[in-house]
Amino acid sequence: MSGPSDEFEWIARGLAPLAEGAPEAFGLLDDAAAIPSRPGFDLIVSKDAMVEGVHFLKEDSPDLVARKLLRVNLSDLAAKGADPYGYFLAVAWPDKFGWPEREAFAHGLAEDQARFGLKLFGGDTVATPGPLTCSLTILGWTPAGRMVRRAGARAGDVIFVSGTIGDGYLGLLCAKGLWVTNSYIEADWLADRYRLPQPRSGLAGALRDHANAAADVSDGLIADAAKVASASGVGLEIDLDRLPLSEAAAAWLARAASPVEARIELATGGDDYEIVCAVAPENAPALLAAAERAGIALSPIGTATAGSGVRVFTDGLEVEVAQAGYVHR
Amino acid sequence: MSGPSDEFEWIARGLAPLAEGAPEAFGLLDDAAAIPSRPGFDLIVSKDAMVEGVHFLKEDSPDLVARKLLRVNLSDLAAKGADPYGYFLAVAWPDKFGWPEREAFAHGLAEDQARFGLKLFGGDTVATPGPLTCSLTILGWTPAGRMVRRAGARAGDVIFVSGTIGDGYLGLLCAKGLWVTNSYIEADWLADRYRLPQPRSGLAGALRDHANAAADVSDGLIADAAKVASASGVGLEIDLDRLPLSEAAAAWLARAASPVEARIELATGGDDYEIVCAVAPENAPALLAAAERAGIALSPIGTATAGSGVRVFTDGLEVEVAQAGYVHR
Repeated sequence: MSGPSDEFEWIARGLAPLAEGAPEAFGLLDDAAAIPSRPGFDLIVSKDAMVEGVHFLKEDSPDLVARKLLRVNLSDLAAKGADPYGYFLAVAWPDKFGWPEREAFAHGLAEDQARFGLKLFGGDTVATPGPLTCSLTILGWTPAGRMVRRAGARAGDVIFVSGTIGDGYLGLLCAKGLWVTNSYIEADWLADRYRLPQPRSGLAGALRDHANAAADVSDGLIADAAKVASASGVGLEIDLDRLPLSEAAAAWLARAASPVEARIELATGGDDYEIVCAVAPENAPALLAAAERAGIALSPIGTATAGSGVRVFTDGLEVEVAQAGYVHR
Repeated sequence: MSGPSDEFEWIARGLAPLAEGAPEAFGLLDDAAAIPSRPGFDLIVSKDAMVEGVHFLKEDSPDLVARKLLRVNLSDLAAKGADPYGYFLAVAWPDKFGWPEREAFAHGLAEDQARFGLKLFGGDTVATPGPLTCSLTILGWTPAGRMVRRAGARAGDVIFVSGTIGDGYLGLLCAKGLWVTNSYIEADWLADRYRLPQPRSGLAGALRDHANAAADVSDGLIADAAKVASASGVGLEIDLDRLPLSEAAAAWLARAASPVEARIELATGGDDYEIVCAVAPENAPALLAAAERAGIALSPIGTATAGSGVRVFTDGLEVEVAQAGYVHR
């Protein structure tokens, strides 16, 4: 058979294996899932959507698209200090997606749901005359009242960011052929960072225990920091000289005509799926120790202050950031 | 301003009012919502997606599209015996949707979330070069372990269906100009049934108390009955002569060249958003009384038997149904 005969067969063959072992899902044979109450815990829910040509490239393989979809949602859970539990999936398939593409999509989900410890609970699969469009609703758990919020940063907090910043943005440039590095290895590595973000799930517990506020960095470091500032009612001062950079990003920066503009580009480019968080100075050592145990780097990049908005510094001077983050439009 | 300046402004202006009074949603200022545990209850979750040109017409107004999206999901909750609680929304907007269209969409949601008693908890809003595409994840509550499942029908059960069948299908024909009635009033009424389904939320409690199995009728009565049969491990016998029909559908049937084929068309057309359920004969009077109190008609259309699959009868003879329900492809 060259194409799926219908939606039901796709659910039974492609998706039901992803729900195995999850009594919540009733084998995907029902209209809904049932989540039993877990006293003492809050269910943390987030929902992110992706569109072909906007959030991933037309030529990206379906297994990577599926994994990115799961991972951008896992990134939200991690920032909230929540442990992964399950997810609901809606996919609108263009005609060109036959069985092989759909099976690759399911394989991508299978791989990452095993890696991150969650299962498929339900969803919907429909046809579209347009681009591949998918949304995922992710569920996680925190102890009651312990979700790490955007609101919660206090003046005097240290601002940390996980991993490195700017690789996803440079990876998109590489994947689109808009920037050609001297090194194929570097270009592939960067493009991978765009196509397959690394959600910082290992940080969830540490954020819950030690952070006052956190958000994941998806729209760009400055834009997401601005949301933390606004929700918390504080100002943030960010020092671009302390931006944690990969070797590839550092090499790109070294060749840039204007290092200041280049740093701003990295801090506003988006697609990082790192975590920015605000931590009281006295809790910083415990957070750093927990992050080290999880094998995740955390770099101090600034402080929270009285006031509002994000002020950005480099070479000791304040710089103006025109567009605070990439807006998917 | 002619168009939304960005996603954040749309969330703040258009969507945040829909989350007012819901502490779960943190004013839509966070990456996630937090659902507190409700001991003794299960959280019932369903997710349905809709695509312009597939599940609704290009010319349908945005407020009706939003209300249909909410209602097709409410229909799932009702069939599961669950009481509405909240929802997550993902919308991929084409460029042509500016502020007026988005505001109309939000107004549609506001109207129906008030009517059906639920609130917006979160979601995502993105851009698409393709058709308007939206998905909604709906949350409801049942007492623990009391979700009405597709699996649960037993041989001997009476099969009931709510409301009338076939109006959504005929409404789509009218809206597309594929069928011209003599009566504009009839045509408008039918097109309304397609554009604005009536979820049977008033039946949720009665189904929980009295039904062995239930599903909502979205893909067509026969197709959805077949899913109940398959999940329950029983056969279903459905008598098309007992199909509850509106005046408009009855008039259409009376003019049909082949009444048998026309009845099958109505029973497989889809877009009914009624409820098909299986009830032990001794519980039928209580279910009917509860439905009457809710002002919702329930009609007996068949019985569950030992065996498998759906057998369809009309004029006392068994008929073969080639395509068991409309498949959105």
